[in-house]
Amino acid sequence: MFRFDSDYLEGCLPEILQALQETNFEQTLGYGMDPHCAHAKELIKDAIGAPDADVHFLVGGTQTNVTVIAHILRPYQAVICAESGHINVHETMAVEHNGHKCIALPTGNGKISAAQIEHVLVEHRDDYSKEHTAQPAMVYISFPTEKGTIYSKAELEAISKVCREWNIPLFVDGARLGYGLASPACEITLQDLAKLADVFYIGGTKQGALFGEAVVFTDTRLSKDFRYSIKMNGGMLAKGRMLGIQFETLFTDGIYIRAAKNAIDKAFAIRDAFAAKGFPFFAESPTNQQFPILPNELIAELRKKFSFESWGFVDDGHTAVRFCTSWATTDEAVDSLLAEIGKL
Amino acid sequence: MFRFDSDYLEGCLPEILQALQETNFEQTLGYGMDPHCAHAKELIKDAIGAPDADVHFLVGGTQTNVTVIAHILRPYQAVICAESGHINVHETMAVEHNGHKCIALPTGNGKISAAQIEHVLVEHRDDYSKEHTAQPAMVYISFPTEKGTIYSKAELEAISKVCREWNIPLFVDGARLGYGLASPACEITLQDLAKLADVFYIGGTKQGALFGEAVVFTDTRLSKDFRYSIKMNGGMLAKGRMLGIQFETLFTDGIYIRAAKNAIDKAFAIRDAFAAKGFPFFAESPTNQQFPILPNELIAELRKKFSFESWGFVDDGHTAVRFCTSWATTDEAVDSLLAEIGKL
Amino acid sequence: MFRFDSDYLEGCLPEILQALQETNFEQTLGYGMDPHCAHAKELIKDAIGAPDADVHFLVGGTQTNVTVIAHILRPYQAVICAESGHINVHETMAVEHNGHKCIALPTGNGKISAAQIEHVLVEHRDDYSKEHTAQPAMVYISFPTEKGTIYSKAELEAISKVCREWNIPLFVDGARLGYGLASPACEITLQDLAKLADVFYIGGTKQGALFGEAVVFTDTRLSKDFRYSIKMNGGMLAKGRMLGIQFETLFTDGIYIRAAKNAIDKAFAIRDAFAAKGFPFFAESPTNQQFPILPNELIAELRKKFSFESWGFVDDGHTAVRFCTSWATTDEAVDSLLAEIGKL
Amino acid sequence: MFRFDSDYLEGCLPEILQALQETNFEQTLGYGMDPHCAHAKELIKDAIGAPDADVHFLVGGTQTNVTVIAHILRPYQAVICAESGHINVHETMAVEHNGHKCIALPTGNGKISAAQIEHVLVEHRDDYSKEHTAQPAMVYISFPTEKGTIYSKAELEAISKVCREWNIPLFVDGARLGYGLASPACEITLQDLAKLADVFYIGGTKQGALFGEAVVFTDTRLSKDFRYSIKMNGGMLAKGRMLGIQFETLFTDGIYIRAAKNAIDKAFAIRDAFAAKGFPFFAESPTNQQFPILPNELIAELRKKFSFESWGFVDDGHTAVRFCTSWATTDEAVDSLLAEIGKL
Repeated sequence: MFRFDSDYLEGCLPEILQALQETNFEQTLGYGMDPHCAHAKELIKDAIGAPDADVHFLVGGTQTNVTVIAHILRPYQAVICAESGHINVHETMAVEHNGHKCIALPTGNGKISAAQIEHVLVEHRDDYSKEHTAQPAMVYISFPTEKGTIYSKAELEAISKVCREWNIPLFVDGARLGYGLASPACEITLQDLAKLADVFYIGGTKQGALFGEAVVFTDTRLSKDFRYSIKMNGGMLAKGRMLGIQFETLFTDGIYIRAAKNAIDKAFAIRDAFAAKGFPFFAESPTNQQFPILPNELIAELRKKFSFESWGFVDDGHTAVRFCTSWATTDEAVDSLLAEIGKL
Repeated sequence: MFRFDSDYLEGCLPEILQALQETNFEQTLGYGMDPHCAHAKELIKDAIGAPDADVHFLVGGTQTNVTVIAHILRPYQAVICAESGHINVHETMAVEHNGHKCIALPTGNGKISAAQIEHVLVEHRDDYSKEHTAQPAMVYISFPTEKGTIYSKAELEAISKVCREWNIPLFVDGARLGYGLASPACEITLQDLAKLADVFYIGGTKQGALFGEAVVFTDTRLSKDFRYSIKMNGGMLAKGRMLGIQFETLFTDGIYIRAAKNAIDKAFAIRDAFAAKGFPFFAESPTNQQFPILPNELIAELRKKFSFESWGFVDDGHTAVRFCTSWATTDEAVDSLLAEIGKL
Repeated sequence: MFRFDSDYLEGCLPEILQALQETNFEQTLGYGMDPHCAHAKELIKDAIGAPDADVHFLVGGTQTNVTVIAHILRPYQAVICAESGHINVHETMAVEHNGHKCIALPTGNGKISAAQIEHVLVEHRDDYSKEHTAQPAMVYISFPTEKGTIYSKAELEAISKVCREWNIPLFVDGARLGYGLASPACEITLQDLAKLADVFYIGGTKQGALFGEAVVFTDTRLSKDFRYSIKMNGGMLAKGRMLGIQFETLFTDGIYIRAAKNAIDKAFAIRDAFAAKGFPFFAESPTNQQFPILPNELIAELRKKFSFESWGFVDDGHTAVRFCTSWATTDEAVDSLLAEIGKL
Repeated sequence: MFRFDSDYLEGCLPEILQALQETNFEQTLGYGMDPHCAHAKELIKDAIGAPDADVHFLVGGTQTNVTVIAHILRPYQAVICAESGHINVHETMAVEHNGHKCIALPTGNGKISAAQIEHVLVEHRDDYSKEHTAQPAMVYISFPTEKGTIYSKAELEAISKVCREWNIPLFVDGARLGYGLASPACEITLQDLAKLADVFYIGGTKQGALFGEAVVFTDTRLSKDFRYSIKMNGGMLAKGRMLGIQFETLFTDGIYIRAAKNAIDKAFAIRDAFAAKGFPFFAESPTNQQFPILPNELIAELRKKFSFESWGFVDDGHTAVRFCTSWATTDEAVDSLLAEIGKL
């Protein structure tokens, strides 16, 4: 049985285990006040070309999203996002639990537009009873989105421009950031992202780390006292160097993008195999998640040898499914799947 | 330089790194739904002698405390604890941030008594305007306490009895549980604790794991839907098996207690060396934290070769300091310290 | 200038002022522990035919909604409502601020259906990663809705049935309850509502009181310790008898419905006048809010003599507006408006 | 039976009922956007000598405290107060429910000192693990305190000075402000208070209004978007003019202080009568609350004709009790009490 359920099925990149082994008996202070965290922050600031950025490490994505959002917003403020945004659908309403509404915008492909965002802001500004509604005060987007799509450079620039005109921060969820950057369809670099976003995070969990997300505040007015929020939200790892060591490794010798590249190559091979057989796709994804629409009986057949998620009802006979590749996906697994697709 | 600042200075037990290495390329489902977590839960239930308990794994202590407390309490309810309790002083008010007051009781040695708890409950019951005050509805104690002390069996039984008479749960913070159980002064077993507490956790972070705390609900009415609370509070690790693998290791071949025993032996050697020189102690600790009161100039002298925390002002010339040992404390470090103490 | 902006433009029914005058120098205990509150509760329980119900008085609607919802739900639970529900759009996200998501269902006329509700519950139950999403655990509907519509008896019964099958409470926001009950189109009585809902409130603010909402728990398991929640949420009026006196008055001699009837009669006169001129309506409302769609120039013309709210964009030349009547709307105001409509 | 239980036993000043009567059928917009609120704000700004202050009206004290505190603090910040402060003991932990800790300082007479406050701030600043603790960021004091005492001008100036040096706001709870200002022992004026505090409120509920508290922000940076917070916390009264009309009345012709003066005169008569009989007092109060310590049998005797609260256990034979006077306390009630005291 080969699994394509998610991009967090395996442990971590061997280089990371190696680094943990080598550093295991070092004695360092806790809570991220250690040399590995310091070094990893420098490596990240170099990579993004923002020497004055403020970098923090957290353990997981939901924790990161809610800590950033709740830290920035005032109590009566809300965050604008896509209806399909991770914070709106798969984080057990952690944002609401921390007191903020998700103003969820309709989206087909997981992306929202500058025009949609501006519309919300204009409507609120012009509402004479505006204080009876939550104040939109932040934009959250995912790059890549939950549907595997990525924003074009022009789209991102337009969103960033609206945010700056209205003086609200743009927060980019990069849980799968590397899988976006490593895509041949991607028009932006890490440096571009650092310029366009006010705060974003670089996902580790889904891209070869045991766990860990690196939050980057390029607008450092937003990060004042952020360590209080990390601790209060239960995100301050006692042995914080685990995070530093992992990001040191990921940002050395181009490992982060190289690991992501494996996922893209494998995903495209799978995509092409389904396309060659004439199967349509639920979303056009240039990243590590592929969503072919298959007849239900073929799904049942494939599941004898492979595991993967159902993603959406299409019609009584067809379902969209998700094949997810990662830094760890092997040739063997993909070859086996391709062979099976060939037989369909 | 040898460090005695805390019990989370190093990485993890070699057995854990070994297990991570061996399992690294297994493919398992995320979020704790994997065979390692299942196995670790069985090992823990065996160890505590409570086959019907409900076990969950979280990443860190603050996260665990707040998730358990906020899951159990209704919105207008408060938790009774010691003034020096970790939730009251060192968790950036995470409990209050989740909407609940800590009713903090005075304590010298870190412990609170059944009589103190009952007094709070009686006062509240008899207050005719009681709904103008937070309702005490849970008791939180630490075992060992933040001052290194441990409850006697009689003390714990009395607290448990009050809680059951008043029908409120007893929650035991076991961030350093092993260091309590491994102490020669300890009168209770893990099985006793499971009988006396309604929910408690077994600390991994401070006792040889990279991270991880195992929450045990022996009163399973309290744990209904607990996974929602874990996720909502940002505590559900994507690669949840990391927790399972670590607790599998800790609860195999008696490693958990054996690792703790090292800390106790080392702590007692340090304690005895200071005592032999006639220094008094801030608290009588039978566990891995020792609090000698030293003249400030000797502290400065010791700090040339060792790091350790200042714990409390005593008088203008003296300060209480903390020497903390752990599963990882070496003979070399302790011998070096003993030699230095001998010279004082 | 006559105002039709809302149903809280004036002070209160003269009978209420009279009662306040007569009781002004009585000395009573605070916080609702006075004879007037006790008497008003009895009158309400008689009126609804539920002698065992638990009745509480709060000051305003938003406060009532959030206090009831936050009291009932556990931290990870969400409330199902209409997209246009007051809690979802006009309460500055008070529900989210208290930690709960509004699962907002699409609606044209302000109503949601039993089938929509059941769909949410089924989807959640069948979601294998359900703990990654908020748990739907309560239904909130408004009677009448924010669009002036009312549920038929069959619709309400179906919703109630789904709620009971799934064991989740049905909460009915009755901010304008009297305006619903007094409508000739209404198929239910107060007694019916008490049977079908688990908790509901009887609005005072919009129906002749200075302020005040009477919350009725017919499922008294839900109201345990509710006074703690009232106080904690800032809703416990010190001079609580003000609420008791007002509801005593409203529930004596049929004043509550009689006052509402005036609004209905006036609203229908306005509706009929617009309809006679051939104007369409944004929503078919049998209650005190009427939503004619008018050409923008006519709106400007009418606004010279009357004030009323714009309710929704229809097209470049037309806007839906709202004329709101109340217990206090005078013949003079309506006659003046009808005369003006006649001239359009 | 005459009652001395509290200062909210009666309805309101006749002038207020009169004003409600006269304005009853005016049509005004809701939520405080009416001419009466505007006028009342001007009257208050004149009275405090702060033309640029920002004034808002809320319904009750708990609501006011929590709305102000939660509006100002960032999520990880805490409020410094007296252990006996109303927010710490009698508001069902509304502050904690909104996510903030009360850092409660010991006090005998209900007051805290500048030195105590500064100590907290210094300790926090110097704590190298400060982000593990809540950040003290605001000071809350009551004037008069819950024990009837009032700060001297020098005490208030010292507290204000510390707050400004540390750049944290000073919030003064004035639920009984008039009873302080009207005391012959009071060294400050309303204008002084406006200069020394950054935000304070002028209590209406306990001083002759049906309900209502006027919040004054003299530091208007703190009040940005405050109406959102009022609405979100359920404190925005639909018929907001009720608040405007009441404060218009209270701040016309010196009614506010004149009404308070009655309470002081009556309280002093009671105080002097007990003192003449040689009874000691629990606290030296120069305001409308008096706390004689009486033998339990005399208390029982007095309770046959008068109601009043027990305030604190003194010894097995004695209890401190509270006699509370108000704007409404009559000569008849006091004469009757004095006669009874005379017989003791």
